[in-house]
Amino acid sequence: MNYQNNLSVESQLLKIFLRSQTKDYSSTEIEAGKEILSPEKPQQTIYFSLQGIVKLSRIDCTGRETFVGLLPEKSFVGLSLLLNKSQSKYCAIALTPVTLISTTVTKFQQKMQKSPELWTPIFYKLLSRSLTAQMTIESRLLRTSEARLVAFLLVLCRDFGVETDEGIKIELKLTHQTLADLIYSNRVSVTRILGQLQQQQTISIARQQIILHNPSILRQYFAIPSYSSM
Amino acid sequence: MNYQNNLSVESQLLKIFLRSQTKDYSSTEIEAGKEILSPEKPQQTIYFSLQGIVKLSRIDCTGRETFVGLLPEKSFVGLSLLLNKSQSKYCAIALTPVTLISTTVTKFQQKMQKSPELWTPIFYKLLSRSLTAQMTIESRLLRTSEARLVAFLLVLCRDFGVETDEGIKIELKLTHQTLADLIYSNRVSVTRILGQLQQQQTISIARQQIILHNPSILRQYFAIPSYSSM
Repeated sequence: MNYQNNLSVESQLLKIFLRSQTKDYSSTEIEAGKEILSPEKPQQTIYFSLQGIVKLSRIDCTGRETFVGLLPEKSFVGLSLLLNKSQSKYCAIALTPVTLISTTVTKFQQKMQKSPELWTPIFYKLLSRSLTAQMTIESRLLRTSEARLVAFLLVLCRDFGVETDEGIKIELKLTHQTLADLIYSNRVSVTRILGQLQQQQTISIARQQIILHNPSILRQYFAIPSYSSM
Repeated sequence: MNYQNNLSVESQLLKIFLRSQTKDYSSTEIEAGKEILSPEKPQQTIYFSLQGIVKLSRIDCTGRETFVGLLPEKSFVGLSLLLNKSQSKYCAIALTPVTLISTTVTKFQQKMQKSPELWTPIFYKLLSRSLTAQMTIESRLLRTSEARLVAFLLVLCRDFGVETDEGIKIELKLTHQTLADLIYSNRVSVTRILGQLQQQQTISIARQQIILHNPSILRQYFAIPSYSSM
């Protein structure tokens, strides 16, 4: 498990951003359900979330929304603007109330030029997010809704999992409808699958939070690839 | 288009690695079809490809191979070892003859600690690769083989595309069978779709290299999301 490592990187980033906040950064509160970034409102802003969960998606040219990922607190939003100063094609929505600090692309670049050692934690953050994206790719290739749902729960363990005596608890309150949207299934199927998994005692749910009692057995049972960092 | 930007990052990386080669790095030639990394032969090595194309895939617990991506020359292989010193679950195979320089995870970390400014090009490299992975996720969600193939060709434009008078040429020789494997289709379908696209004059093929005459029209026609960095 890689939680320890991730946590130390996150606290390092938090310190960096908070230290600079008085001069270059401003903090904003966003209500649940509200937009942070949208392709329709182009901006040159990079965000860092201090609290709350951000849902990333992309809108294709027919207007269809494709879910890309859930970002835990202490995540960057808009880093891709560094590659190309044009508009971001991401849509970032606050899934819960979110507190953000922000800076402009130009100020961010100036700061990184002055203090190149700050790239280290940002690099590790991005590397971790890349692995999550990779797992998401693979989870979508699974044929059954059961396997896709279990694989997605295992992906969520990476960012939201907390080790407890009973297993890995996903510290995230998701309705069955939201889970269904995230794995391209429907609410009825998700309710049925979660019910079956509970009956088999492979998971348990308390206050909308899911505990995976034995992730490695779940992975083997559903033939889900395992990651070195899980 | 982002080719300029990518190229300058790549040449910067190349310089860094070549400069250090005499002391910490050793160069290896790998024949086409041979393995570079495999979960069965765990190692603590990070590679940087000087020449040639590397195919990344992952093997799940049932032995099924999942294609993850094609890495152009001047790519890192094994960066994920930095997150966790355990075994890498990737399988990296030389698609063409590949020349690699390599270093151990420990030496890489020591070097980066001494020269943190080297994180800058590595970060940009990883950011670009993350966007490619994101596009791959989305291309796999498309319902028809036609759309998945076109979306995959557009992904290849990012890493292998060269602007010509006729359009974007993908500088990569791929057989129809390889393309079929990469988009989870079959050779017969790929041959049929490429034939149709040639008839419609949206693409042309010369010596196994595909030219996309108007990527943005293709994208709209197949309802493929566009990226700011494309």
